[in-house]
Amino acid sequence: METLMENEVFRAFTTYAAIVILKMLLMAPLTAYYRITRGAFSNDEDVAMKATEERKKLLRTHPDVERVRRCHQNDIENVIPFVGLALLYTLTGPELSTALLHFRIFAGSRICHTISYVCALPQPCRGLSWMVGILTTFSMAYRVLSTVLLI
Amino acid sequence: METLMENEVFRAFTTYAAIVILKMLLMAPLTAYYRITRGAFSNDEDVAMKATEERKKLLRTHPDVERVRRCHQNDIENVIPFVGLALLYTLTGPELSTALLHFRIFAGSRICHTISYVCALPQPCRGLSWMVGILTTFSMAYRVLSTVLLI
Amino acid sequence: METLMENEVFRAFTTYAAIVILKMLLMAPLTAYYRITRGAFSNDEDVAMKATEERKKLLRTHPDVERVRRCHQNDIENVIPFVGLALLYTLTGPELSTALLHFRIFAGSRICHTISYVCALPQPCRGLSWMVGILTTFSMAYRVLSTVLLI
Repeated sequence: METLMENEVFRAFTTYAAIVILKMLLMAPLTAYYRITRGAFSNDEDVAMKATEERKKLLRTHPDVERVRRCHQNDIENVIPFVGLALLYTLTGPELSTALLHFRIFAGSRICHTISYVCALPQPCRGLSWMVGILTTFSMAYRVLSTVLLI
Repeated sequence: METLMENEVFRAFTTYAAIVILKMLLMAPLTAYYRITRGAFSNDEDVAMKATEERKKLLRTHPDVERVRRCHQNDIENVIPFVGLALLYTLTGPELSTALLHFRIFAGSRICHTISYVCALPQPCRGLSWMVGILTTFSMAYRVLSTVLLI
Repeated sequence: METLMENEVFRAFTTYAAIVILKMLLMAPLTAYYRITRGAFSNDEDVAMKATEERKKLLRTHPDVERVRRCHQNDIENVIPFVGLALLYTLTGPELSTALLHFRIFAGSRICHTISYVCALPQPCRGLSWMVGILTTFSMAYRVLSTVLLI
């Protein structure tokens, strides 16, 4: 087990996987922050402390909350497949420099994506950063399938 | 490969990862159960067997179905990052007792979270159990990044 | 690390995990395709190039877009747990033929599921393919928990 962590590519994978998973996890507190500041909740028990007439008003959707939730959802759709494929890619034994290039581009693209999404920057900021991330993932998947195909 | 499973920490990880993933998977049959008992579907083909006048009435959302779906979504947002980070954490070679403490607290917190959510227990049941789970995940991420940082 | 990839079961796992993750990732471009052809967007910045009177009309939901999004969500709920449990299952050292059987049935069931969902085939096409996939996952989870239980 320790031999895996002695491998530099595996350590690079571990670092970047932890970074992008943490980035994804932080979307949950951000959603909570928007829910509280915008006053937009989805569960009865979340507004039980408020006065009765106020409750109904707080059980609503708010554009800012929906935006940050879509951003979170996009992270789930892209970051988790990246982590899975990056693990398989790492185990095919790529060059450290090539692997780092993939991991750095992906992590950078997802940070750009989150900023573009949450701040509603004009397109194609968000579109491009999403595209760069998914192409990096496809490139790793190509390496994995061309190295170890057993159907 | 067998050497991984001879390691006790890895076996503990395997056990708890399987348990929390299974718990997450069981939300799907639970959603199906609520959809059928509450009569709230989202696809035309799911209500094709009913009489024509009944169909439109069944294509709707129902608060109980939406609640169990939000609970499922919260599992996806928290359980999958836990499994990813717990794998990396396990490979850094922690003490068995510390690892078990993390895994047990997380699994317990998610079971409390699901019960609080589906039964709509008053806050802060759900909020606290979510918080305990995410803090356990952050603690593992801290250990991973402080042990094997290669950027 | 190379020893993992010399193992045939692990190579089979790698191949099928990459295939189902890729299938899941391809739902994102498919959603984009439906959004553009159906003219149904969810972000202001996505329609900023259009004339002002057209913008509001394009910020809407469309049944076809919602259908492909539900299909994507179902992939997330089923494919990611499969990949996690299949990794643990592979590390328990199963027979190659048994492992291949699990992986092939799951991959086939998810492809049938996507076709049934996107093309809105009459039930029970979608229900059955979903059921086959989740039963395969449960079968692997049973093997994992019965082989390496450490609570």
